Amino acid sequence: MLRPSNREFDEMRKVSIEPNVNMHAEGSCLIKCGNTHVICTASVEDHVPGWMKGTGKGWVTAEYGMIPRATGTRMEREAKKGQSGRTEEIQRLIGRSLRSCVDMARLGEICIKVDCDVIQADGGTRTASITGGYVALRLAINKLLKEKVLFSDPIVVSVSAISCGIYNGTPVLDLDYVEDSNAQTDSNFVITGRGGIVEIQGTAERVPFTPEQFTQLYNLAVKGTNELKEIQRQALI
Amino acid sequence: MLRPSNREFDEMRKVSIEPNVNMHAEGSCLIKCGNTHVICTASVEDHVPGWMKGTGKGWVTAEYGMIPRATGTRMEREAKKGQSGRTEEIQRLIGRSLRSCVDMARLGEICIKVDCDVIQADGGTRTASITGGYVALRLAINKLLKEKVLFSDPIVVSVSAISCGIYNGTPVLDLDYVEDSNAQTDSNFVITGRGGIVEIQGTAERVPFTPEQFTQLYNLAVKGTNELKEIQRQALI
Amino acid sequence: MLRPSNREFDEMRKVSIEPNVNMHAEGSCLIKCGNTHVICTASVEDHVPGWMKGTGKGWVTAEYGMIPRATGTRMEREAKKGQSGRTEEIQRLIGRSLRSCVDMARLGEICIKVDCDVIQADGGTRTASITGGYVALRLAINKLLKEKVLFSDPIVVSVSAISCGIYNGTPVLDLDYVEDSNAQTDSNFVITGRGGIVEIQGTAERVPFTPEQFTQLYNLAVKGTNELKEIQRQALI
Amino acid sequence: MLRPSNREFDEMRKVSIEPNVNMHAEGSCLIKCGNTHVICTASVEDHVPGWMKGTGKGWVTAEYGMIPRATGTRMEREAKKGQSGRTEEIQRLIGRSLRSCVDMARLGEICIKVDCDVIQADGGTRTASITGGYVALRLAINKLLKEKVLFSDPIVVSVSAISCGIYNGTPVLDLDYVEDSNAQTDSNFVITGRGGIVEIQGTAERVPFTPEQFTQLYNLAVKGTNELKEIQRQALI
Amino acid sequence: MLRPSNREFDEMRKVSIEPNVNMHAEGSCLIKCGNTHVICTASVEDHVPGWMKGTGKGWVTAEYGMIPRATGTRMEREAKKGQSGRTEEIQRLIGRSLRSCVDMARLGEICIKVDCDVIQADGGTRTASITGGYVALRLAINKLLKEKVLFSDPIVVSVSAISCGIYNGTPVLDLDYVEDSNAQTDSNFVITGRGGIVEIQGTAERVPFTPEQFTQLYNLAVKGTNELKEIQRQALI
Amino acid sequence: MLRPSNREFDEMRKVSIEPNVNMHAEGSCLIKCGNTHVICTASVEDHVPGWMKGTGKGWVTAEYGMIPRATGTRMEREAKKGQSGRTEEIQRLIGRSLRSCVDMARLGEICIKVDCDVIQADGGTRTASITGGYVALRLAINKLLKEKVLFSDPIVVSVSAISCGIYNGTPVLDLDYVEDSNAQTDSNFVITGRGGIVEIQGTAERVPFTPEQFTQLYNLAVKGTNELKEIQRQALI
Repeated sequence: MLRPSNREFDEMRKVSIEPNVNMHAEGSCLIKCGNTHVICTASVEDHVPGWMKGTGKGWVTAEYGMIPRATGTRMEREAKKGQSGRTEEIQRLIGRSLRSCVDMARLGEICIKVDCDVIQADGGTRTASITGGYVALRLAINKLLKEKVLFSDPIVVSVSAISCGIYNGTPVLDLDYVEDSNAQTDSNFVITGRGGIVEIQGTAERVPFTPEQFTQLYNLAVKGTNELKEIQRQALI
Repeated sequence: MLRPSNREFDEMRKVSIEPNVNMHAEGSCLIKCGNTHVICTASVEDHVPGWMKGTGKGWVTAEYGMIPRATGTRMEREAKKGQSGRTEEIQRLIGRSLRSCVDMARLGEICIKVDCDVIQADGGTRTASITGGYVALRLAINKLLKEKVLFSDPIVVSVSAISCGIYNGTPVLDLDYVEDSNAQTDSNFVITGRGGIVEIQGTAERVPFTPEQFTQLYNLAVKGTNELKEIQRQALI
Repeated sequence: MLRPSNREFDEMRKVSIEPNVNMHAEGSCLIKCGNTHVICTASVEDHVPGWMKGTGKGWVTAEYGMIPRATGTRMEREAKKGQSGRTEEIQRLIGRSLRSCVDMARLGEICIKVDCDVIQADGGTRTASITGGYVALRLAINKLLKEKVLFSDPIVVSVSAISCGIYNGTPVLDLDYVEDSNAQTDSNFVITGRGGIVEIQGTAERVPFTPEQFTQLYNLAVKGTNELKEIQRQALI
Repeated sequence: MLRPSNREFDEMRKVSIEPNVNMHAEGSCLIKCGNTHVICTASVEDHVPGWMKGTGKGWVTAEYGMIPRATGTRMEREAKKGQSGRTEEIQRLIGRSLRSCVDMARLGEICIKVDCDVIQADGGTRTASITGGYVALRLAINKLLKEKVLFSDPIVVSVSAISCGIYNGTPVLDLDYVEDSNAQTDSNFVITGRGGIVEIQGTAERVPFTPEQFTQLYNLAVKGTNELKEIQRQALI
Repeated sequence: MLRPSNREFDEMRKVSIEPNVNMHAEGSCLIKCGNTHVICTASVEDHVPGWMKGTGKGWVTAEYGMIPRATGTRMEREAKKGQSGRTEEIQRLIGRSLRSCVDMARLGEICIKVDCDVIQADGGTRTASITGGYVALRLAINKLLKEKVLFSDPIVVSVSAISCGIYNGTPVLDLDYVEDSNAQTDSNFVITGRGGIVEIQGTAERVPFTPEQFTQLYNLAVKGTNELKEIQRQALI
Repeated sequence: MLRPSNREFDEMRKVSIEPNVNMHAEGSCLIKCGNTHVICTASVEDHVPGWMKGTGKGWVTAEYGMIPRATGTRMEREAKKGQSGRTEEIQRLIGRSLRSCVDMARLGEICIKVDCDVIQADGGTRTASITGGYVALRLAINKLLKEKVLFSDPIVVSVSAISCGIYNGTPVLDLDYVEDSNAQTDSNFVITGRGGIVEIQGTAERVPFTPEQFTQLYNLAVKGTNELKEIQRQALI
């Protein structure tokens, strides 16, 4: 089996994370997973949604967008037509994933909004958003700790995400766009820095998959998120 | 461990499927999974979406809704505020699941729309919709075969779905609303009549879960969908 | 003159009202007028719209919807395209009709929302919604009286509704869909249990009608609503 | 009984109709019913809605609007918030009323859009719109006849409309805003130039009304529309 | 060069301003600039937008609309499709222009909404709206002064507006629709009664223009707004 | 007078233009004007809007957006609330400006969409978008010429844009955000590479400005756009 990208079956694309790319945001980074590039910013607001007021707890939420020519064919701007169901599904996934890292009671009545804006897409934008979103969130909380807004760290564990799929009958790690378009199954795994599973989304595109295949995909994802965890750590030094 | 419903950890709620409940639809049923009741209708249209014209292939799609007082507290009507991201996510899941059963080339340029309208909700509405949606789809295609619109059966396998979760530390089958609200994890499994995995959606609500727990959930789902497959078969006799 | 339904000119369809069909709603019923089936639920909320706060008075409002395949040809879901003018017109009619039964001062600052969801349509859905909506409202208020939330009954009179029309030149009672599509005029009458007129809506579809014809339609409506009043009473025992 | 307007119970407000007030429209007028002022324009389009193409028949439709300060308190602009259900209900009533005057086959595949824009409101805007809308429509069709676009007159009868209501227990003709706000019932009658009933809309605001009262309202409406018919005739000379 | 309107290059259309045309509004006028007719109303509200509360300052804002057949070809009603970008741009221009006349601190926490509704259009609707809007605003503030709601005049200067353009190579004053459609450039000037420039909007339609041409357009605008200032003064006597 | 940026009154911020930053777009660049950063992409589509079909002419249009944290305080995402009037006004300005450079007949029936997405904002985003948008457009057309889709260059002149304003009573070039917030007037100038004026937008924020001041602003803009023209030229080598 040869992947279009010539990568080994268990080889991720080159990933880089550049921190502090935005002069306004409390935390930010530009994550590049091969040709997929996402700007992640974390914005701190000193109030929580109405239904949380008075609970003493904070909130973390995420939004996701693409510039129109992030993709091979220009997509209509969502500001013109409203957010698609796909976009809403993705941003809810990012939000859930990042919330799983945070002790909301320790955060206090603060809301952090993580925006993930894809400026170039080549597959795996939702998983890159989670991995980069964590870095932006971590940087924003570091700032709050440094400024004595927070006194104890609300982040309990790091998180990263990767996709795996079955391409030409073989489980492979980190699908790019061409591979994804031809994969039989596309699975996204969100895994913490201590190996806990936060989210599994496995979808058979045409042919149902077997439990054995699913286990192989999971093992690849564990390898990938271990590598991402180290890249996140380096970016945060 | 005692479940609020007093069921065994691997015991589903009582499920019934009443076929042909709608005088207009080509296929329809009322599925009751305990107190969760869903009307499923399959509507046949003799044309496909624009992007499929001329391909010789058909399409199956799904929509999902709830009447406002399906839930314990009345929800605002989506006709007034638009479909939520949750609704869009669910109906895309139902559509993908049902499409996995169908050979679109054998269906020909026909579109079948499966509507799943929840008239009473008590947890597990999306999985009930898939299980009942399959029966409505099967009935509609039976009608097309009988009327000689189709000459060979486009359905290649049956499909059903069930949720599992970790309640009080124990993996359990088929969460009702009270259990779901207190579960640590909520996973939905869509599995074909031959045991193929069509979709896995596992979400840790508060605490990440371990690979071992995930395997236990999967095994419960296999037991549950085997039982649902038999109930579907009885309803279609 | 022969009606397509083979009914006499002054003969209603068979009507049944099954109370308490919904486990969550304070009041509910399933009304069947021939093949027109509507689920009516009454939801009690302990606050009124902003403009009524502090007046000491309550409010009753109604909403109306159809599942997409309630009709012979599947209609697009209103959650996707917004409520049509027809829907808004109907739900305002239902709301006005039900409010005419209630002494708002005796209700106190409580809001009751009556939802009428058509699960199968064969003509006369708006009048069936009023007739069934009254039963749901009555049941909800009975519950409030029993639970000592209310101490005196705010309902001053019952209400029901029926359509009449001129079919093949003859005034007839209770048009079904086929008759309605071919009627020269379609009139809806909302009449209280004591014979007061709450609402008259008469529309000439193609040919204007005469005052004499209108009187004949009115007399049929009086007969029909007298029968409906008795069916409501039986359902509420 | 004294009406706030000091009019007799069967006395209409002063009505004037100024034809041809708009330089662009094929037909237009400014109708003043007391302080209610409506600009009516009829716009001819040489194509019909899609569902009518090839039928050889034409179509007449209406739209209704108010400038924001037409009313005592400024209303939010509908261009900002969308058309209300009330607006949609009114414009459908105007459209149905005007269509009842026209033989669509004789009109041919032409669409006439009648816009009724209220520039000052003091009650009775929907009935003024119908009465003025007929004049605009008549003028537009006169132009088509004169220009030999049409060869035989598609208008079969004139139409006008008036409201009546029960004020302080007495049936009165042509409610203005103050009377309307305090009336027990508000009924709108659309009646042709030959006395045929096109539309009756009777609504009890608080107290149901009796059949006798309804007959009295109807008789007042016949008197009023007879007077309006003559004012329309004068404006069209 | 001959203008289609046969006017001199520096000749405005005949302008009339009729004050107090609306019975409800605190200030109103009907401005006619040739065949362009606009109803302007000023509505006083005793509260300001949320972000201004407690500042002690007032606010003036404007909205703009057209009835559908104001134009040669009927335009779709904005209440049906939402306000276009063009409409929003125009109403923001009118608002900015009128605010430039007012000392908000002297106005106090009052909001004045100026609505400009075009009932017939023949070019120059936005500049007519500013010129007429000023008169409506002035009348509303006169009323507040007379009623002792205000004690010192918040209006510091008058304002009016005119368009100029290059037609057949020659700068001309006050373009009507036919001229505007064929002009190489269209510039709008908003100028105070003391000659201060409030707003300049110059757009080359096809060919960029030179600084010299721009100066000529400006000089024409000064002449035009001087004339408009006198017409405003007469209308306010 | 000291500018907050310590720049001379006629000194622009440092401007850089990096071409070809997007792997998918036919033309693209990242323009940085100080801390204002905009990604510009030009997307070629081989069809024109419906109203241009068959004319043999092409079209150039522009869209504008900001990521939510481009600004000091996070703005709500336009995909969630729709495009504001400000956004529509800006994108129409960009589109008009770019169209002024192009001979549409020579372009042929091709549509080029220029997207300007602000990833960091510090004042002057609309003028940076025009200056960068021209470069993206030029690169896309170069590609079409190289690929022999076009045979003669449809671009007739370059274009760039800059803002000027009166800060502390002195006309200054190229306002950044802090200066803009405190300027008495804000003017945008769009000027071609041959000195033709394409667009002038001058707005007095609080105090009207004089003709002399306006001339000074214009002269600064000429200096600024001359410098931008050279930076564009360098980026396109």
